[in-house]
Amino acid sequence: MTLIAKLKSRLATRNLDAILISQPDNRRFLSGYTASDHNIGESAGVLFIPRRGKPLLLTDSRFELDAKTEAPGFSVQLYAKGMLALLPDLLIEYQIKRLAFESHYTLHSTFEQLVKLCKKNSIEPIATTDLVETLRLCKSESELGKLQASVTLNEQVFQEVHRTMVPGMKEIDIALQIETLMRQRGAERPSFATIVASGENSASPHAVPGLRKIQEGEPIVIDMGLVLDGYCSDMTRTVVLGKPSVKSREIIRIVRKAQLAGINAVQAGKTGKQVDRIARKIIKDAGYGNCFGHGLGHGVGLAVHEPPGLSPRYTKKLKANMVVTVEPGIYIEGWGGVRLENMVVVTPDGCRNMNRDETCFNL
Amino acid sequence: MTLIAKLKSRLATRNLDAILISQPDNRRFLSGYTASDHNIGESAGVLFIPRRGKPLLLTDSRFELDAKTEAPGFSVQLYAKGMLALLPDLLIEYQIKRLAFESHYTLHSTFEQLVKLCKKNSIEPIATTDLVETLRLCKSESELGKLQASVTLNEQVFQEVHRTMVPGMKEIDIALQIETLMRQRGAERPSFATIVASGENSASPHAVPGLRKIQEGEPIVIDMGLVLDGYCSDMTRTVVLGKPSVKSREIIRIVRKAQLAGINAVQAGKTGKQVDRIARKIIKDAGYGNCFGHGLGHGVGLAVHEPPGLSPRYTKKLKANMVVTVEPGIYIEGWGGVRLENMVVVTPDGCRNMNRDETCFNL
Repeated sequence: MTLIAKLKSRLATRNLDAILISQPDNRRFLSGYTASDHNIGESAGVLFIPRRGKPLLLTDSRFELDAKTEAPGFSVQLYAKGMLALLPDLLIEYQIKRLAFESHYTLHSTFEQLVKLCKKNSIEPIATTDLVETLRLCKSESELGKLQASVTLNEQVFQEVHRTMVPGMKEIDIALQIETLMRQRGAERPSFATIVASGENSASPHAVPGLRKIQEGEPIVIDMGLVLDGYCSDMTRTVVLGKPSVKSREIIRIVRKAQLAGINAVQAGKTGKQVDRIARKIIKDAGYGNCFGHGLGHGVGLAVHEPPGLSPRYTKKLKANMVVTVEPGIYIEGWGGVRLENMVVVTPDGCRNMNRDETCFNL
Repeated sequence: MTLIAKLKSRLATRNLDAILISQPDNRRFLSGYTASDHNIGESAGVLFIPRRGKPLLLTDSRFELDAKTEAPGFSVQLYAKGMLALLPDLLIEYQIKRLAFESHYTLHSTFEQLVKLCKKNSIEPIATTDLVETLRLCKSESELGKLQASVTLNEQVFQEVHRTMVPGMKEIDIALQIETLMRQRGAERPSFATIVASGENSASPHAVPGLRKIQEGEPIVIDMGLVLDGYCSDMTRTVVLGKPSVKSREIIRIVRKAQLAGINAVQAGKTGKQVDRIARKIIKDAGYGNCFGHGLGHGVGLAVHEPPGLSPRYTKKLKANMVVTVEPGIYIEGWGGVRLENMVVVTPDGCRNMNRDETCFNL
């Protein structure tokens, strides 16, 4: 069954006549149309998928060529003054009574306009949140191939930059070198702002690279990812130049142990909460339970953060072909932090590590 | 009067007891807190500004250090499970009856949770759209200084890259060189994806840099901007390598004439529509009226596109210390396009050009 057929069957189950898809990853997933929104207020287009009939891609003239080339399964219709101006005619043409929209990617201000428009046409607007996201949870073979290519390229960029790192270089220059190389090697863009955090800066899980010069012996956390053919990678390495300090060595060893325990725990049928607890226990038992404030991992696909989660709050079961990060960390204010992050594919009896792990563990 | 005092006075006027600020530029404007949202669903924090009492910055532990350092006027409160979990206690503590939120940066899904939460506490949620945006329209001296620094750095980067441009270089490589240099020179990031569009590619105002090699004689449109200390620049140059073709020369001269007319027309008290019309007339009179499809300009500040507009639709009056772009263009399908863009500060009796214009006008 094609994706569109699957979605239409879900519409039927919920008695919905059509759905508006505004979320850019969902839009790309269903149509192949690659444009990204400048921001949520400046959309590059919306899919209109009726339960019966050919789906439409609504966009403006700037994107006409791309839309037609990339989304051959869709009829492209252009609007001059926003998607909502095009909608009334479509709602009549397709005899829509119940119109779904994506609650999690519709601004309240847009919702208010939509409500007015629906009222005028005696249509019921229905908020949905997961109709497409749930289709994205388990990856197809083609998606797994793209994710692996993204992971592999990301690692290559890391290796190449890591070789050039010497004490005295600024965090920001290393981050810049990474992001430039990503694009030179063919990535669409970084999947998030690259983190290079050294010494005490690394105590913040989301540190912004600054003018601090990296030094021997201290932990340097590099969290990086790229987008290749739409799919994201996400990886963290903690490296030490020269001889690691005693403390660096101790903390890296604990985090690595927690990571390996987490990877070993991943398996279809286990919950995200169960996996998180197993890795977290290692850190707790070592006396650093209060220094690991975030979840163990998250799903990766068209979005760099997507379901499922490996965290105390995620009680659903993992399924085969989900892709998640495993990224424990220990953060100590005034000293620094260590985080190690791989991506794995969930399998029926465990998981497959998508990363290669040769760096920095001969401690 | 401080910004917060101004905002509190607006809350009083509208009989609002507090406002939640989720829009990242507004958040930074009011608090100094520089974090950016990964996306609208992954917020780096929300301001809670009560009509009476000290304002709060609500965020999670990842951002605690930055929040406390950057926003000394705010009490930082941390949430583990989302901002909304923190809210009920605050609403009681501050005796809130009418709670404003930003309709244009609140997801429908968040709104629904907010409505439930308010209902439970007998509170009225009030949608607002412009309470902070209108405070951002006229720039302070400090903001003008930052905008000028952003413009000046942007020009330096352009000059440096322009000197290296020779026929045969690919558009995408020039764009990458520009963005790398921006960050090496201290910019936070480009303020939008840099446009380098040559020959017939330049006929699209929003061209994406590609593999096309730039050639002698043809127009090459470079539209670039950066973010420095939070503030955006935005500038377009159309350059020609070697001797311009007759057509290139003709079109550039017309666009330059329109730009100068536009700059001369900018003045406090005039409407955006009036200024647009004056520049547009030059292009119309030269026979290219149909080749200038966008507005003449837009406001620039913490956002690269913000009010006011210079366009047929903007009928409000300009005020002193607003900052706008003046960017006429002529786009001819199959041939190419020319756009020239400066930023100006509106003054009581005209405007001050923030750019230097020495390039490419000895035609």
